[in-house]
Amino acid sequence: ADIVVLPGDGIGPEVTAAAVQVLLAVGKRYGHGFRFSEHLIGGAAIDATGEALPAATLEAARRADAVLLGAVGGPKWSDPRAPVRPEQGLLAIRAALGLFANLRPVAPHPAAFGASPIKPHLLNGVDLVVVRELTGGVYFGRRERSDDRASDLCEYSVGEIERVVRRACELARARRGRLTSVDKANVLETSRLWREVAARVVRDEYPDVELEHQLVDSMAMHLLAKPREYDVIVTENMFGDILTDEASMLAGSLGLLPSASLGEGRVGLYEPIHGSAPDIAGRGIANPYAAILSAALLLRHSLGLDAEAACVEAAVAGVLEAGVFTADLAAEGQAVSTREATLAVI
Amino acid sequence: ADIVVLPGDGIGPEVTAAAVQVLLAVGKRYGHGFRFSEHLIGGAAIDATGEALPAATLEAARRADAVLLGAVGGPKWSDPRAPVRPEQGLLAIRAALGLFANLRPVAPHPAAFGASPIKPHLLNGVDLVVVRELTGGVYFGRRERSDDRASDLCEYSVGEIERVVRRACELARARRGRLTSVDKANVLETSRLWREVAARVVRDEYPDVELEHQLVDSMAMHLLAKPREYDVIVTENMFGDILTDEASMLAGSLGLLPSASLGEGRVGLYEPIHGSAPDIAGRGIANPYAAILSAALLLRHSLGLDAEAACVEAAVAGVLEAGVFTADLAAEGQAVSTREATLAVI
Ligand SMILES: CC(C)[C@H](C(=O)O)[C@@H](O)C(=O)O
Ligand SMILES: CC(C)[C@H](C(=O)O)[C@@H](O)C(=O)O
Repeated sequence: ADIVVLPGDGIGPEVTAAAVQVLLAVGKRYGHGFRFSEHLIGGAAIDATGEALPAATLEAARRADAVLLGAVGGPKWSDPRAPVRPEQGLLAIRAALGLFANLRPVAPHPAAFGASPIKPHLLNGVDLVVVRELTGGVYFGRRERSDDRASDLCEYSVGEIERVVRRACELARARRGRLTSVDKANVLETSRLWREVAARVVRDEYPDVELEHQLVDSMAMHLLAKPREYDVIVTENMFGDILTDEASMLAGSLGLLPSASLGEGRVGLYEPIHGSAPDIAGRGIANPYAAILSAALLLRHSLGLDAEAACVEAAVAGVLEAGVFTADLAAEGQAVSTREATLAVI
Repeated sequence: ADIVVLPGDGIGPEVTAAAVQVLLAVGKRYGHGFRFSEHLIGGAAIDATGEALPAATLEAARRADAVLLGAVGGPKWSDPRAPVRPEQGLLAIRAALGLFANLRPVAPHPAAFGASPIKPHLLNGVDLVVVRELTGGVYFGRRERSDDRASDLCEYSVGEIERVVRRACELARARRGRLTSVDKANVLETSRLWREVAARVVRDEYPDVELEHQLVDSMAMHLLAKPREYDVIVTENMFGDILTDEASMLAGSLGLLPSASLGEGRVGLYEPIHGSAPDIAGRGIANPYAAILSAALLLRHSLGLDAEAACVEAAVAGVLEAGVFTADLAAEGQAVSTREATLAVI
């Protein structure tokens, strides 16, 4: 299998290197030949080529079986008025590969309960996945700017809603059969359309899935007050951005959370949900588990290697249980390095 | 002073009645003659007049010194495709009175730490106010709908941003002098404008205020991980809706959180941030504290009665300390009624 690696910025190179090492170990143990090729994206690409997503990177990604990404962005390129920004590379590759469904599983490990701001008894047994629409909404609508005003258009078509709701329903079917669709239907027209389409898709095509609608503001509360009650949550792009970062707090550290971005095609993009963490970049102390767990999702969703994926996930769970923590999770003076954590998983 | 009372739907009539009783007691003790007049809004108004905000209600509100509102909405009127919905009454009165700044203080009381999903050591000393822009953004932009798509326009002018940032700066000055402005400037054009204007207003007019910018997704995390670090948080309408409901979880119960909606004029609108809670309506068990604390904000912001406001707030803190809890906060079998809670405050 051909895997394109996009290290990106900040701690991106460190954590993708860790994930690649783990994939090599999986290949060796199970007899798979994974071929890796590295390409530029984000700030690193801007510095080298002037573009956040060079054509060569996109071409390589299109031809690959899967893409593993680190993180993009950093203070060096963070002026919001700069003509090219690292984040544009990420948004552009999501759009160009048609990756409309972003899966973000959250299943807090008891070993990390201590690092979560949420009370442990609420975290016990939490196992949810947020399916965030990733190529529509206000992220990709028409923008306007004049001297004294600015606007962003939030737009959704029936087809865009149908396909991501279907993906969420498939996932719910393979899990506990419950779907929560999140919108702001008491205010937004796009949300009223979202709610209608979600209700119709479930009724006509997935009658076995149990559907509940929630307003985004209520959901921001329920996610904290009763996280155990959720199975699959599906929502539009902007709400998904906010709710998944909120949900990440259930897991204790951003450093534990992987994501998979999927489309109709085979190629998926896998990335930790954490950012480029420029403050700790280059010091060899970043938490590699989110990138390693993203590699596990890659094995499962793009390569169909379920046993291999489960093996990686079990290894990470094992080292967490054993208390092998990087600085984001460890008690004072007890932290291991990125390299040590990676070797422990391997 | 003339106070217009808009009980609205669900538990709205019960909690506004409690707040009015407390205001009467304040009037008696301090020698103020408050005049109350009740008017229709929301579902109750739709049932009686076909409109969510009847002209008579708006006229009374315009002539009043302040408006005290309960809550609007309920399953009876909740079809998102209905031509008139209760929420429209709320959005319309906010817009018509020009109430562009919605203040939502969150200062969890130790007696309610047990009811919060957040660990108590993080809640200790939390004292923040979210200032939510309330009459702009995607809430009031142009909406379109066709058979196969829908759109909502998010729009902000420089003037709309300036006035709410100024209000937040004034508040920060009267508190700990720190302002956090929340946007999504790495994606949205309105957010880039927001960030520029916020930076300029603080630099040119409030150089003594310490300003920090945060992305909305990061803010959704920091609000839980380190709530003590925030003083005043200012943000646009939709982000404010989500973040304030999230922040409410710090306080243990929505039933404790008041809000004030202010404009350039004198008349403000005061309402608990909880909804109409149709499931418990009419049973005399709703938590009246949020409505009572909203009345305290009314005394302070619309009537300039600071001592009276502080007296009401101290009374609520006192009864919480004494463990006078309604069902949302009480241990099994220990709950008092709305009436008992109100009398305890009085
Ligand atoms: C970097 C940014 C554009 C991106 C987003 O908002 O989608 C990030 O926050 C994410 O969630 O992947
Ligand atoms: C009822 C609804 C329209 C309203 C809003 O979204 O503003 C409510 O959630 C609030 O926060 O006051």
